[in-house]
Amino acid sequence: METFHAEIITIGNEILSGRTVNTNASHIARRLTSLGFKVRRITVVMDEINDIAEAFTEAISREPAIIVSTGGLGPTYDDKTSEGLAKALGVPLTLNENALNQVKTKYLQKGIEITQERMKMAMLPLGAEPVENYVGIAPGIYMERGMIEILSTPGVPKEMEAVLEVFISKFLKKKPSVKYIEANFEVKGIMESALAPFITQLVKKYDLYIKTHPKGYELSNPMLEIQIAGSDKDEINLDKRISYCKEEIKEKVKELGGLIVE
Amino acid sequence: METFHAEIITIGNEILSGRTVNTNASHIARRLTSLGFKVRRITVVMDEINDIAEAFTEAISREPAIIVSTGGLGPTYDDKTSEGLAKALGVPLTLNENALNQVKTKYLQKGIEITQERMKMAMLPLGAEPVENYVGIAPGIYMERGMIEILSTPGVPKEMEAVLEVFISKFLKKKPSVKYIEANFEVKGIMESALAPFITQLVKKYDLYIKTHPKGYELSNPMLEIQIAGSDKDEINLDKRISYCKEEIKEKVKELGGLIVE
Repeated sequence: METFHAEIITIGNEILSGRTVNTNASHIARRLTSLGFKVRRITVVMDEINDIAEAFTEAISREPAIIVSTGGLGPTYDDKTSEGLAKALGVPLTLNENALNQVKTKYLQKGIEITQERMKMAMLPLGAEPVENYVGIAPGIYMERGMIEILSTPGVPKEMEAVLEVFISKFLKKKPSVKYIEANFEVKGIMESALAPFITQLVKKYDLYIKTHPKGYELSNPMLEIQIAGSDKDEINLDKRISYCKEEIKEKVKELGGLIVE
Repeated sequence: METFHAEIITIGNEILSGRTVNTNASHIARRLTSLGFKVRRITVVMDEINDIAEAFTEAISREPAIIVSTGGLGPTYDDKTSEGLAKALGVPLTLNENALNQVKTKYLQKGIEITQERMKMAMLPLGAEPVENYVGIAPGIYMERGMIEILSTPGVPKEMEAVLEVFISKFLKKKPSVKYIEANFEVKGIMESALAPFITQLVKKYDLYIKTHPKGYELSNPMLEIQIAGSDKDEINLDKRISYCKEEIKEKVKELGGLIVE
């Protein structure tokens, strides 16, 4: 089964200083995972043209199916994603007529004039298409580079979400034809290290992703959240594998003296 | 003034699937920023040896002062950070006596036997030192590569925080001798794009980091959080620059018909 890899790039000093938690990357990751993509890397870089260009260049070199970035598309001096992306692709930044119309329309409806800062949001890499932003003003940027589809979204969460949905419904060409299923449950009174050798066997047996997330204290009050996940073209088969695997873990937990919380 | 760059690497499929928000990276970023480091990149990779090794190799090639990783140090099959780090450094993984003592002591105090899975937490890259984990079991890993200091912490937040503090107080050699100050306030009734050209001037004038974070809707209900931040050896001078800059922005906001919320 072909795996469709994805990469996410977050642009923003506020993430790197720890001021803002990168919930945008989590949202994009969840949404892409739900479509069957496997997100292989998330990169956060500063609002600097060279850093942004480097992040895109590196991501492109790993040849994922898609790259989604967030941040750096606004009207201010430190919004440099469009320029960084153009640099990575080796194309000039040009005033995109469609983007300009989208931006202009929004300001003119409110009787607000177009300034140079506002025009900046319509400067896209040559060959890019604007992705309509129904919540804010700065449009997203869609580009193709060989087999890779690239989307840049604004950093304001509600705008990022809106642009991502427009991209998925109107632009995205590659959609994995797989089903993704996830099961989660909690167990008490069993140490992660006691369950570890058994989990290793099950991962191989069922070809699933199994992760034990420790929530309590390993020695005094062990509590584990167990996550089983997988993707498959055959939904029935996938569902069965996850159920069987879950049952085996529950049996083992009881055998080792633990409790299923669920 | 010399800048001490830092990089953060998060290891964990649960971040890449969007299941978990990367609050660990935010915590590390905030803590390093508070010490005067400038975090230049955050990278999130899968629980795969090659991916982990790649992330470390790339970070090392950019020659930051320090690299802090989080995740992948536990007893389970998918905890592969130690192995990935060893691979990046081209050194073998060996049983570290000090680490083994730390791990053993914790289990033996509870009358629990040492298994192969539990011994795994004492397998460190050759030349590494364990960093005591006062909250959990898996010790952190401290290594030096040329001028770069490397710390790996566990992924459980309270363990990551504890190991990071031990690293800062007992291991970290390079500490930037700068003061970091940040000021935040909110303004209403003014569009980000209207303030943008003025902010650009101030950034140059005061050599500060200024970011406008849009919170409302640009056209109908504009609200901005304004952040001013800077580092300097001279704390008095830095404080003055930030105060003057803040006053200039407030004046401009009022002039443009906006309100200061604070």
